[in-house]
Amino acid sequence: MKQTLPYPVLQALVGDEEVGAFFSNEAELSAMLRVEAALAEAEAKVGLIGKDAARRIVEVCGAFQADWAKLAEGLARDGVIVPDFVKQLRAAVGKTHAESVHLGATSQDIIDTALTLRLKSVIEIIGHRLDTLTHSLDGLKRRDGSVRLMAHTRMQQALPFSAADKIDTWIQPLERHREALEVLAPRLLVIQLGGPIGTRGELKGHGDAVADAMAEILGLGFGPSWHSQRDRIGEFGSFLSLLTGTLGKIGQDIALMAQNEVGEVRLATGGGSSAMAHKSNPVPAEVLVTLARFNAGMLGTLHQALVHENERSGAAWTLEWMLLPQMVISSAAALSRAQGLIANLNLLPSKAAEK
Amino acid sequence: MKQTLPYPVLQALVGDEEVGAFFSNEAELSAMLRVEAALAEAEAKVGLIGKDAARRIVEVCGAFQADWAKLAEGLARDGVIVPDFVKQLRAAVGKTHAESVHLGATSQDIIDTALTLRLKSVIEIIGHRLDTLTHSLDGLKRRDGSVRLMAHTRMQQALPFSAADKIDTWIQPLERHREALEVLAPRLLVIQLGGPIGTRGELKGHGDAVADAMAEILGLGFGPSWHSQRDRIGEFGSFLSLLTGTLGKIGQDIALMAQNEVGEVRLATGGGSSAMAHKSNPVPAEVLVTLARFNAGMLGTLHQALVHENERSGAAWTLEWMLLPQMVISSAAALSRAQGLIANLNLLPSKAAEK
Amino acid sequence: MKQTLPYPVLQALVGDEEVGAFFSNEAELSAMLRVEAALAEAEAKVGLIGKDAARRIVEVCGAFQADWAKLAEGLARDGVIVPDFVKQLRAAVGKTHAESVHLGATSQDIIDTALTLRLKSVIEIIGHRLDTLTHSLDGLKRRDGSVRLMAHTRMQQALPFSAADKIDTWIQPLERHREALEVLAPRLLVIQLGGPIGTRGELKGHGDAVADAMAEILGLGFGPSWHSQRDRIGEFGSFLSLLTGTLGKIGQDIALMAQNEVGEVRLATGGGSSAMAHKSNPVPAEVLVTLARFNAGMLGTLHQALVHENERSGAAWTLEWMLLPQMVISSAAALSRAQGLIANLNLLPSKAAEK
Amino acid sequence: MKQTLPYPVLQALVGDEEVGAFFSNEAELSAMLRVEAALAEAEAKVGLIGKDAARRIVEVCGAFQADWAKLAEGLARDGVIVPDFVKQLRAAVGKTHAESVHLGATSQDIIDTALTLRLKSVIEIIGHRLDTLTHSLDGLKRRDGSVRLMAHTRMQQALPFSAADKIDTWIQPLERHREALEVLAPRLLVIQLGGPIGTRGELKGHGDAVADAMAEILGLGFGPSWHSQRDRIGEFGSFLSLLTGTLGKIGQDIALMAQNEVGEVRLATGGGSSAMAHKSNPVPAEVLVTLARFNAGMLGTLHQALVHENERSGAAWTLEWMLLPQMVISSAAALSRAQGLIANLNLLPSKAAEK
Repeated sequence: MKQTLPYPVLQALVGDEEVGAFFSNEAELSAMLRVEAALAEAEAKVGLIGKDAARRIVEVCGAFQADWAKLAEGLARDGVIVPDFVKQLRAAVGKTHAESVHLGATSQDIIDTALTLRLKSVIEIIGHRLDTLTHSLDGLKRRDGSVRLMAHTRMQQALPFSAADKIDTWIQPLERHREALEVLAPRLLVIQLGGPIGTRGELKGHGDAVADAMAEILGLGFGPSWHSQRDRIGEFGSFLSLLTGTLGKIGQDIALMAQNEVGEVRLATGGGSSAMAHKSNPVPAEVLVTLARFNAGMLGTLHQALVHENERSGAAWTLEWMLLPQMVISSAAALSRAQGLIANLNLLPSKAAEK
Repeated sequence: MKQTLPYPVLQALVGDEEVGAFFSNEAELSAMLRVEAALAEAEAKVGLIGKDAARRIVEVCGAFQADWAKLAEGLARDGVIVPDFVKQLRAAVGKTHAESVHLGATSQDIIDTALTLRLKSVIEIIGHRLDTLTHSLDGLKRRDGSVRLMAHTRMQQALPFSAADKIDTWIQPLERHREALEVLAPRLLVIQLGGPIGTRGELKGHGDAVADAMAEILGLGFGPSWHSQRDRIGEFGSFLSLLTGTLGKIGQDIALMAQNEVGEVRLATGGGSSAMAHKSNPVPAEVLVTLARFNAGMLGTLHQALVHENERSGAAWTLEWMLLPQMVISSAAALSRAQGLIANLNLLPSKAAEK
Repeated sequence: MKQTLPYPVLQALVGDEEVGAFFSNEAELSAMLRVEAALAEAEAKVGLIGKDAARRIVEVCGAFQADWAKLAEGLARDGVIVPDFVKQLRAAVGKTHAESVHLGATSQDIIDTALTLRLKSVIEIIGHRLDTLTHSLDGLKRRDGSVRLMAHTRMQQALPFSAADKIDTWIQPLERHREALEVLAPRLLVIQLGGPIGTRGELKGHGDAVADAMAEILGLGFGPSWHSQRDRIGEFGSFLSLLTGTLGKIGQDIALMAQNEVGEVRLATGGGSSAMAHKSNPVPAEVLVTLARFNAGMLGTLHQALVHENERSGAAWTLEWMLLPQMVISSAAALSRAQGLIANLNLLPSKAAEK
Repeated sequence: MKQTLPYPVLQALVGDEEVGAFFSNEAELSAMLRVEAALAEAEAKVGLIGKDAARRIVEVCGAFQADWAKLAEGLARDGVIVPDFVKQLRAAVGKTHAESVHLGATSQDIIDTALTLRLKSVIEIIGHRLDTLTHSLDGLKRRDGSVRLMAHTRMQQALPFSAADKIDTWIQPLERHREALEVLAPRLLVIQLGGPIGTRGELKGHGDAVADAMAEILGLGFGPSWHSQRDRIGEFGSFLSLLTGTLGKIGQDIALMAQNEVGEVRLATGGGSSAMAHKSNPVPAEVLVTLARFNAGMLGTLHQALVHENERSGAAWTLEWMLLPQMVISSAAALSRAQGLIANLNLLPSKAAEK
């Protein structure tokens, strides 16, 4: 009962359990196993490895237990987890078919495709949450849209307008983000298979066929190897930061409207203070601002990783690993915090607008 | 002959004359005048102002000479140039029609639409340069594609491959950027007309009609007022940083290949040194890396401006002004530097790849 | 044996166990308990609470078991963990002395002082590692300093020089960082005690005396409340980014020197590849570059949190929480990776320099 | 009268004429000439060149007229302005002493020392402005310090306090910045002289003596060549961003206090609106927030330039050139805007605090 938590407690404020789960060690391993299994199946299909080998690999991938300590050691040594992972996987598959594991692939194929697989699920969740949030804002507009608010420009009172006018400015960019996500998803969710230098050269003329089969098995799009071209990742990061930027603007508006002196919103439940019992802090509104500023900064750093040296940059790739998961989780958290905030929100007539 | 330059000399290295011109004081004023003229025409069309008034305003906008010192003073005082600009314009139009100038509009309508007008031209130039660059890379591939290079991963020799393999990894993201630009342009190039608080309320029921007519006159898309929704600006910034990121990766590759020890490229003309006559520095390749890192950082800062308070944030809007022009010019410069670099480039067979 | 890891596996590459431990949930709680205990002792000393109360509070703080699930819930609700923590602590202390717990303090006093306490230990570790690294570089210089290397400017061969010349450029900034840390430490390691609005007003005229006594108990410096003045945090972030920048430069140099074509360093152990058995990747050198770029980006984001609204910004403070621990851990990791890299390094004569 | 401006009009809002002047083409050239003259004098002192040569060089440096078009061409070609500058300077000096110009120095010596020279003046101005601002805040505190304000935490009313309490939180970090500047100045203002690869090797054993003499002539500190060690530049950038962060916090506070609903400040003169005559916008307060966010983002980008490859990175160095002048000017502008804001400010009793 008084046990500790398996995650940093700050995640309770700025994290997201559902989406965060896709970036756990286990989820990454599981996605990597799916990729190795799909690779084997695809290679068997084109005759690069035997059907027996593929069957054995798929079977082992389904039940594989990693030696995590060794994986961690391998990652520290090799800069990527795959070499040790493949070694463990080959041992589990057994001598007969060991050579058929990971055939013609390279670390980056496994890591990037395993990431893409998880982003596919993440994108579905984000899309769904965007729909739900827009729906809630529509509901708020229907219910409170006629409330008279004061518009503010440059932090000064401008002219009165309706809550519907304000809510429209929150909904419109969300609708654009929803559309952008539809356009972005097929561009992003493309299999990475290139082999050591991105040419599919180790697949003996079957490279495109293997990639195509893998893509079908995994439900991803097909395209040439993209491992040294990180624009897709950068573009997804931009989407996330635009999304949290829009949500941060909503949060900023609500925090300003929630000021006691302004009193244009009432939060059903506000945050408490350890020193002042009378306070009701607009915590989720503030967190939306935090997450917007966080993601904006992460984006500027993620785009530094577009400068990928030659056929693989260890430095730039590792930088992505440190940033993208945080951005995804922050975005999911922002959607969730925004949902809670809007569901809790009542818009109140501005006294200034009545004058 | 020995005169000074009308611009910071650093622009010779990292700037772009053609695109930079869109962000001169004169170009901004000229675009603002086009917007005020179009507003008057549109308002005359729906009957909000008289045809005479519109004719007079259009005429004056075509010949207006600003008092720049007063504009600068006004900007320093008001935080935006428009109040003083409108005052000057009204004086130039004369008493009879002064009230018909800028009717129902606000500063942000003029500034944002004037920006959008110029971005329209900029986007055409960028699109054209992207086509030219891709064409040059195709030419390089045709000419030098069979040259044997050494692929490098994690800055170490990996396996030999052809120059065509390498050039493909440069062309592919550029093609994606070209497509993205087509999708982005109509989303970005939308008229801003909202009046003081974004509701078009001062236009007495004719708001949408005026905006529609203005959009047609100016060759922009139509949509609701977006002045507190900066996602379009943030999205365009992302595009620019993705573009310079891709070009920076090409530059980084070439700088690495141009190392004396590697010798996989020869630049027709390299930069000289004040101390070492034997040197031939890959200056444009380095500049591409610089511009990529610059734009990445600017992007992370630009997205901070998505958190726009209420119906207009002076702080966030001003931040955009400080960033977006630099990003646009840097992107245009990067395309131009890349074009010069590729036109100058010979790929040489790797000695390591021959072994 | 095949168990999972209690931390993200990526930490094996970019993390630091020793310093990371200061940012665990347990370490934060433990530091908070030390602060509450010191507050009680200090308040007893000046007579604000009874000696019995202080004794009981200190005793309970020494053995307190938190209900973590409730703390997480409280954090999500209140935006800060302290209100629920104080509630739990008061319950553990018992009715008689409950009121004496956290008397006159606010959440930020506890969180900021608990952070400062841990930074004190972190700074000692960083200082020690800086000394060790400088010592190792001195050793490398003594052993390999006469090796003839080729200097490179703008990625081109310039002129030959000695390894000692190169190593000096690595050591000199580290020595400046070491000095800067000495100057920075007393400026940073200052107790935060202000009460709800930073005036120590709830401490009935004993505010400075309580703060002084607490500072002495906790081994921190004394000063006025600084909770809305985040320059100390921003300055420490700058120090960290300067440090990782210097280490990143060393890493970049070594990665360039380790290129097969250049061959100026030999790493005793290099990272392996899942596809190419012949490779020996300069993994720690690359990681140093990653951590430098990471911390630089984090710093630009951390300084956004300097804009703290009024007497406490929830948004800006939360942003710090998301950034500073990562920066501290990355810096410690960089020192550790650099140490491993230098210990493993042999400098080899440049063939180009022999000519 | 109706002429255009010789600078971007936006500078009227976010620029600074006095400090901006140090970054004009002319100011840079003039500083470069001072450095070449000092180099010649120092070299004559140790006997590396003749006294006649030095006299001639000093004389020509005092009257030199550059061919700017050629300098710009040279910069575009060489990535640095110095090679063409030296060529022009040698021509102006004449054949007899041409060889004695720039002897043993490299481009970076001239550029970095010329920057340092100007930073010396800038630091004096910043120090002076900091003193003036602190003085004004002291005056405000004396005049309005007893005014009753409402403290706000997390954007909610907390408890009443005095204006003096608030102003103290503005003054304290400024005092720390003032102290930090004193410590930083001698660390930053150090001559750069290294020759092509930073070893002073071309100065035939007189390197340290020449550097020492130059430092004395120019009023800078002495130290070994630091051209590939950019921590000083990064540290100065940090200082600037901390300073603008503190000023941005003051601006944010005042913008919040100036809200009509809060009414705790009255600005003697507010910014006007093109649409709403009743408005009085807190323009300088907003600009302080803008400049804080701008500099924070620039800092995160500037620190990317710490990763300097080998003995000179063209890419990283050029990135500094694009960032540092902007940061310096923004910081000076922020001090100037803050000064104007504080001089204009009246603090008004909070109605909420009266209750």
